[in-house]
Amino acid sequence: MANTDPVTLVAQLTLAEKAALVSGKDFWYTEAVKHANLPKIMMTDGPSGLRKQAEGADALGLNDSVQAINFPALALSASSFNRDLLQELGQHLGQAAKANQVSVLLGPGVNIKRSPLAGRNFEYFSEDPLVAGELGAAYVQGVQSQGVGVSVKHFAANNRENQRFTASSNVDERTLREIYLSTFERIVKKAQPASLMCSYNAINHRLNSQNKRLLTDILRNEWNFKGVMLSDWGAVADQEAALKAGLDLEMPGKGQTSTQNILDAVQDGRLAEAQLDRAVERIVAMVQHYPADQSAADGYDLKEQHQFARKVADESIVLLKNDQNVLPVQASDHLGVIGKLAAKPRYQAGGSSHVNAFHVTTPLEAIQAADNASDYAEGYALTDDQEDDKLTAEAVAVAKKADKVIFFAGVPEADESEGFDKTTIDLPANQTTLLAKIAAVNPHVIVVLQNGSAITMPWRDQVAGIVETYLAGEAVGEATWDVLSGAVNPSGHLAETFPLRLADTPAATTFNASPTDENYREGLFVGYRYYDSKQVPVLYPFGYGLSYTQFAYSDLTVQEQADHHVAVSLTVRNTGERAGRATPQLYVANRTSHIEKPAKELRGFTTVDLKPGESQTVTIDLSQRAFSWYNPQTQSWQSDSGDYDILVGQSVADIELQQTLQLDWGTNDAPTVTQNTYFSDILKRDDLDQALATSGLDKVLSDLTSSGDNAKLLENIPLRSAVMLGISEQQITQFIQLANQPVTD
Amino acid sequence: MANTDPVTLVAQLTLAEKAALVSGKDFWYTEAVKHANLPKIMMTDGPSGLRKQAEGADALGLNDSVQAINFPALALSASSFNRDLLQELGQHLGQAAKANQVSVLLGPGVNIKRSPLAGRNFEYFSEDPLVAGELGAAYVQGVQSQGVGVSVKHFAANNRENQRFTASSNVDERTLREIYLSTFERIVKKAQPASLMCSYNAINHRLNSQNKRLLTDILRNEWNFKGVMLSDWGAVADQEAALKAGLDLEMPGKGQTSTQNILDAVQDGRLAEAQLDRAVERIVAMVQHYPADQSAADGYDLKEQHQFARKVADESIVLLKNDQNVLPVQASDHLGVIGKLAAKPRYQAGGSSHVNAFHVTTPLEAIQAADNASDYAEGYALTDDQEDDKLTAEAVAVAKKADKVIFFAGVPEADESEGFDKTTIDLPANQTTLLAKIAAVNPHVIVVLQNGSAITMPWRDQVAGIVETYLAGEAVGEATWDVLSGAVNPSGHLAETFPLRLADTPAATTFNASPTDENYREGLFVGYRYYDSKQVPVLYPFGYGLSYTQFAYSDLTVQEQADHHVAVSLTVRNTGERAGRATPQLYVANRTSHIEKPAKELRGFTTVDLKPGESQTVTIDLSQRAFSWYNPQTQSWQSDSGDYDILVGQSVADIELQQTLQLDWGTNDAPTVTQNTYFSDILKRDDLDQALATSGLDKVLSDLTSSGDNAKLLENIPLRSAVMLGISEQQITQFIQLANQPVTD
Repeated sequence: MANTDPVTLVAQLTLAEKAALVSGKDFWYTEAVKHANLPKIMMTDGPSGLRKQAEGADALGLNDSVQAINFPALALSASSFNRDLLQELGQHLGQAAKANQVSVLLGPGVNIKRSPLAGRNFEYFSEDPLVAGELGAAYVQGVQSQGVGVSVKHFAANNRENQRFTASSNVDERTLREIYLSTFERIVKKAQPASLMCSYNAINHRLNSQNKRLLTDILRNEWNFKGVMLSDWGAVADQEAALKAGLDLEMPGKGQTSTQNILDAVQDGRLAEAQLDRAVERIVAMVQHYPADQSAADGYDLKEQHQFARKVADESIVLLKNDQNVLPVQASDHLGVIGKLAAKPRYQAGGSSHVNAFHVTTPLEAIQAADNASDYAEGYALTDDQEDDKLTAEAVAVAKKADKVIFFAGVPEADESEGFDKTTIDLPANQTTLLAKIAAVNPHVIVVLQNGSAITMPWRDQVAGIVETYLAGEAVGEATWDVLSGAVNPSGHLAETFPLRLADTPAATTFNASPTDENYREGLFVGYRYYDSKQVPVLYPFGYGLSYTQFAYSDLTVQEQADHHVAVSLTVRNTGERAGRATPQLYVANRTSHIEKPAKELRGFTTVDLKPGESQTVTIDLSQRAFSWYNPQTQSWQSDSGDYDILVGQSVADIELQQTLQLDWGTNDAPTVTQNTYFSDILKRDDLDQALATSGLDKVLSDLTSSGDNAKLLENIPLRSAVMLGISEQQITQFIQLANQPVTD
Repeated sequence: MANTDPVTLVAQLTLAEKAALVSGKDFWYTEAVKHANLPKIMMTDGPSGLRKQAEGADALGLNDSVQAINFPALALSASSFNRDLLQELGQHLGQAAKANQVSVLLGPGVNIKRSPLAGRNFEYFSEDPLVAGELGAAYVQGVQSQGVGVSVKHFAANNRENQRFTASSNVDERTLREIYLSTFERIVKKAQPASLMCSYNAINHRLNSQNKRLLTDILRNEWNFKGVMLSDWGAVADQEAALKAGLDLEMPGKGQTSTQNILDAVQDGRLAEAQLDRAVERIVAMVQHYPADQSAADGYDLKEQHQFARKVADESIVLLKNDQNVLPVQASDHLGVIGKLAAKPRYQAGGSSHVNAFHVTTPLEAIQAADNASDYAEGYALTDDQEDDKLTAEAVAVAKKADKVIFFAGVPEADESEGFDKTTIDLPANQTTLLAKIAAVNPHVIVVLQNGSAITMPWRDQVAGIVETYLAGEAVGEATWDVLSGAVNPSGHLAETFPLRLADTPAATTFNASPTDENYREGLFVGYRYYDSKQVPVLYPFGYGLSYTQFAYSDLTVQEQADHHVAVSLTVRNTGERAGRATPQLYVANRTSHIEKPAKELRGFTTVDLKPGESQTVTIDLSQRAFSWYNPQTQSWQSDSGDYDILVGQSVADIELQQTLQLDWGTNDAPTVTQNTYFSDILKRDDLDQALATSGLDKVLSDLTSSGDNAKLLENIPLRSAVMLGISEQQITQFIQLANQPVTD
């Protein structure tokens, strides 16, 4: 069936049909129009596995969905820092969707992790917009390569769950552009997603779903987004206003009432029919581009997908601590396996990402299937945080006779989900109390963590090893054992900072402080941009992750290329005795611009697989954007001439190579001299000497500064106040005139 | 001479005369109008001593001023926490002004110390608006009791020196009201100052001198300020706009050009003559109220004033460290006096507060006049920060043979002044390097500090004693020795936090980051409000100060009084062996309001003199304001019903007594239920049960929450999105209607 082009097709529709098309038919489907050969298509959660529900189901997930592979939560996958892996993940998800006649997958979630309390962090990539943008784009490309569309969510500045339908994210324009929008911008430009999902919240008191600047001016006019803007489920408060702002599709549909209102709005002249047409055309284009494919189940193999889920976890799990090489465990180690999470793992979280998993292997099963001798003790309950004497005694007994203890700890399911924010980032008291007792009787405790987002670890010094598995998906058992046993050499790196305390986090005083307003006071200083700039000690820094081997970085070269690109090369060498993967991270420190600026910002990253002793030279390309900041006054990205430090490290806190680059691309020409120009700026400029002399200012200035006492004071006086210095208004006027004359050589 | 009332007098003036009166005659004088018997009056710096310059002098201070007593900088005086002392200080300053035919004293400076880098902190009281407001009001009352007016400066949010003529202080309304304006508000309401001085800067991009909301709506209409609003010297960019905004007097006058412009503005109808008349009337009233008094020198005794300067310093110097009671020094102690600042002390800073001091006693002179044996070594230079081997060797030799070393350290004069901000809060390297060497050879080193603002002390652990004398005024020598020798028992407490590092300060990433914009991103979290709330470790906390005796606090009682006042009583006991002064500080922690809020805020303080073993019960009154926050939406102060912790301590970090007070004054009535009301708020309210039942919502909700899994998610859904839950729009509409019906009993 050849598709009629959307514009032609829409011209054939009645106003009522068009009014109906801009709302969902129900919870998961778009409207169909039979006479126009326009089918309905299905949209389905979620970002780490298909959550295809029965027709007519509600969003709260009371109806079970079809069985599907539960891949790791994006919090874990992001720790791979691996674009190829994320692209493959997208392919697998696209394949699953295709096989289930799902046209649009509602993901990925790419919001910035602004606070570790945010309930939905587990679904998101990073605290850094480059990581989220690069990995998000790869994921989108993967899904869409399978003929399935995505909906990149949640657009935008949707960084808390409490009161998420109404709270206003109050954020300055520069921060919005550089941190919260830039991820979406990157994905839109690199991967042209089929749709974006408009989030519930407001920005600066304007509801996103009714924010024309956001949905049209920035997204479509600046970024050239061509896809459908659909609403998060239930986000639309006023569909007419939403359509006018640039929202195309309200989900789910509210039925006849809202359709009738759109019809009336056009007939009453409140809403231009052309505007409605544009929205319908985009929806039609998406429906045509991503039809349900009844024959697409070929090659969809749940078992193969399960193995891929294991691979993603294998390549993403982060080794945080490994004192005296307690890991990997040796086959001869008698293992004490402690903690209910070993037998009843947390491998995913609640809400729209929740999957009816195909096959979960628990860590306990994986360990018991191995050659190692082992004992298991439940240790603690997950339903409350009270210590249990009987469980404690059993666990201590297990620990005492073990060579090494694998202690499973994590955040209980009830405490972490879409829909509400957390109130603590500490592990439950019964887990940490037990851990202290175990550590007291066994010096080789390895903690395996299952959690969706950064937690504190006041117990860190008590244990020999720490492995962060986040929510590892249904292959949690195999992947955990792969890393513990050394079958896999861990290569994950944290895509978020782990703070020492909640009070240390950048939004500690503002997050959820008000039910109506979320003030982004920290501005650009989110995640490592905060800890690094303010020198706040952290538990584990952004970009951190150990390996069973070691890497050395050397030979940094920095070379300007054509078109304002910079090529940064370095050599990475595997200096240990195992094959492994390094993750060089490239940060740029702006030493030049007179603006608030983080100490350094991630501008590039890559991964390198290296055999023992092997070395490889890698090159990371930096575009002009890596040296730019968003200037709200000019409403444009600005790069300033001057010095930039190029820093390469194994984490933001472990910079190994450094070089200063002097750029001369600047948009910062000598500014016009005005009454408000300061003497400090005048005295800095050689080209103004003649004007100073001609207007007689040079003499006054040298008299004033000759004593030395007044030099600094003087520099902070602008021309308009120079009458105080005995300079006449005429002199000042003359000087300004001369200073701004074009130089004639 | 009986004064004609200002309105009548102004009616007799020509337009030209009135246009002339709204500018200064010259640098220091107002215009006179002979036929109206209106004299000129003189205004003169400064806040810690008279800086009366020769007529025609410029503001940079190139002309020497008359000799006067240099009292301690307000940074030190504020450490007394003593309203009576500040009032007495005001009286002395008023007396000095009167005796010199000065009508208006240009001070005090009351701005908040937002960053320790701010160049003018030494002139200001505190990081806390209550301390600055209470002490500022006492000072103003003191000056004005002598028939001399004040100009309280710098109004407002003038918290940095760099680019101070043009930079915009970007600050949210609540922060502005609660932190930056509340000091001025308190002083205006308590002390009715003759004038306020409008600062150079802009607030949120509107120049203060042209900000009608600031100068008229808030200052005059809300606070009922009756005095003259005059400009900081050179602050006016557009006098016509300034007059319209509410500025009365431009200083200094710019001469005929600006007068002519005002004349033209009225004649051309751009400026209402009535508005000009109001400004002139206020100036006339001030001139009449504070005439120069040719016979006022009676009783003005410089020697007596010098003794008072010593008293202020005695009662304000802060003892920061006193290990093993190294202080006070014993008469038998052989003292090593080290550091050039002993012989050439820093006792004041540069700029408008600089005084031609009457008689400076140096600390070295004071020590040498004592009974103790002593040696002196210069130790370091003040003109650079390079170590000098010869000076070092001499100093080490002096230290070796001393029982105790008095090491004088501080910030060189060139680094701290009005007119520019600092770039470091560390002491110069040559001082700290030498100090380490001295501490290595003598375990009893006492550091005496001379500095205008908080500094770091990475060397703290190397020394036994630390005495903070700030800029102690011309009696620096006597006062320093008074405290060192124990003639005076120190009772000063820090009115600002001393941070461990510059990076720890709340504005570290924003301060002076941009030449045009100063973003107050930390909001309310200034000073201890930041460190305390974010649990940032500090060097010395706000309110901290040791004594040669000890105090015990007990018997906290908290009682509600009439008119929304609360009386807080406690007993303070001197448990040591010397008479001394305690400084109980009363903090309130708001546990109730759903807003950003500091962990606790100072709401009251007092001082108590106690003999050894003596105890005294003191009562601190709290008005409703102590429990209020400024609500920008309602543009009013709001106090919410609920719990408040009443905390009394010897510093913000040393809370000794605590009690929770439940208030029921609330302005927070049950809000109207709307489509945006969340189920969490509905389920909290018993009074809505009937409405839930009638509309049938109770059943849906109990079904949804029965499983437990969805309860938290559900709470974060507002009524308008409840259609997703299977609730009909009709049910929601009915519920809202019922919920908002007045209850009929």
